[in-house]
Amino acid sequence: MLLLFFLATIVVASQGSDLGLSHQIHLLTPKSGSGGDYVPGLSCLSWRLGVETRNIIGWTTVPKECEGYVGHYMIGHQYREDSKVATNQAIVYVKSLKLTGDGKDVWVFDIDETSLSNLPYYAAHGFGVEPYNSTLFNQWVNKGKAPALPESLKLYKNLLSLGIKVIFLTGRPEDLRNLTATNLKHAGYHTWEKLILKASSYTGKTALEYKSTERKKLEKNGYRIFGNIGDQWSDLLGTPTGNRTFKLPDPMYYIS
Amino acid sequence: MLLLFFLATIVVASQGSDLGLSHQIHLLTPKSGSGGDYVPGLSCLSWRLGVETRNIIGWTTVPKECEGYVGHYMIGHQYREDSKVATNQAIVYVKSLKLTGDGKDVWVFDIDETSLSNLPYYAAHGFGVEPYNSTLFNQWVNKGKAPALPESLKLYKNLLSLGIKVIFLTGRPEDLRNLTATNLKHAGYHTWEKLILKASSYTGKTALEYKSTERKKLEKNGYRIFGNIGDQWSDLLGTPTGNRTFKLPDPMYYIS
Repeated sequence: MLLLFFLATIVVASQGSDLGLSHQIHLLTPKSGSGGDYVPGLSCLSWRLGVETRNIIGWTTVPKECEGYVGHYMIGHQYREDSKVATNQAIVYVKSLKLTGDGKDVWVFDIDETSLSNLPYYAAHGFGVEPYNSTLFNQWVNKGKAPALPESLKLYKNLLSLGIKVIFLTGRPEDLRNLTATNLKHAGYHTWEKLILKASSYTGKTALEYKSTERKKLEKNGYRIFGNIGDQWSDLLGTPTGNRTFKLPDPMYYIS
Repeated sequence: MLLLFFLATIVVASQGSDLGLSHQIHLLTPKSGSGGDYVPGLSCLSWRLGVETRNIIGWTTVPKECEGYVGHYMIGHQYREDSKVATNQAIVYVKSLKLTGDGKDVWVFDIDETSLSNLPYYAAHGFGVEPYNSTLFNQWVNKGKAPALPESLKLYKNLLSLGIKVIFLTGRPEDLRNLTATNLKHAGYHTWEKLILKASSYTGKTALEYKSTERKKLEKNGYRIFGNIGDQWSDLLGTPTGNRTFKLPDPMYYIS
């Protein structure tokens, strides 16, 4: 038992340190032994599946009972495994494509919880249980220290090596352009075709409306969107979606 | 440990018997202790999430390593819990609607693995590990004994009580009309506005094309599709989708 705990600590620490988390996570108060177990009275696993399949929408915070579950999930191996399945499928898919090589073959990446991870912030703020606090969250973003999601960075490198260009399409506002560009480079994303941030003209529009409008513009400009990856369904729905979409896990927050 | 095994047997037996399974399931060879645990070398939980979020598409059979996992999932509590989260969200949503009461408010139900369950068949055939065998599967369907998915039947009853009419839209071919109608009634679905089966004119078309074309026709005829529930993304994507979609779990097969 002690050995098991010791091993578990090593695993969490080593996985956490990939995201720069080792000194930042708070102590988890687990309600279950592992990321997939049943929690009496509420199945957090079912809740998460409901979120990931877009059956549960418009939610503002993670259910209090699921804080321990979501924390374990995000810090433990399951989040990484789930992300890896998505990006590995994307890599298999992209290797099957016939590309024209005319510089118009692109892949759209969302940024937060897709290219970059805000897990160090969320780990210190209840993994989505606390109501969204824009002041605190912006303080974190303004540090420009968000690490890459390792699986997405691997996909990014694969795409570049195959001659596909990357377009970042984010809900972050235009005034975060320089900071975001620096953060992306710092995290390992060294080049891109476009970095599209949310212009003030989209104020009041949903992410779904904003992002599908911007993808439409891209296609009008001759780009072929072979893939589109994001952690929110609002990254992936709305015409045009791109040839194929990849949903990364995110049980911490919802954006419409 | 023996007690635990005893209890587990009771749970499986009692849940299985809801679907008429008690004498039909084969012996499971579990690779993990519960539906959500990690399987060394392959995370079947991640595979399932990949399937449910449409990251993994075009697959023909469940990975051999996941037979035990998928079997446990389908027969155990997690499949029921996951289904319940989807249908409970649907019930919450439908109770929030303002209905006109003009008889044109409808909800679209897929049939297989949505209204009716073929789990007794799949339990005897490796839970999707065996390649699809149309002869054997048709033998099962022709018995007309598929039980209701209890959660979907509950949603169906809620919808009827609120004055929403139900339209069944299935990939089953037109020549199964009488048999399917009888099976639906036998399972507890006693009334419907329409039962739409796949006409031969759709031969060669995907389920996605067929179903979205039929939904378009419904809207043209003045129906307002408030909800659309199915176990395949091909039930739920394609214009028009209906006001809101609900994805039931199905890790056993894929239809494009």
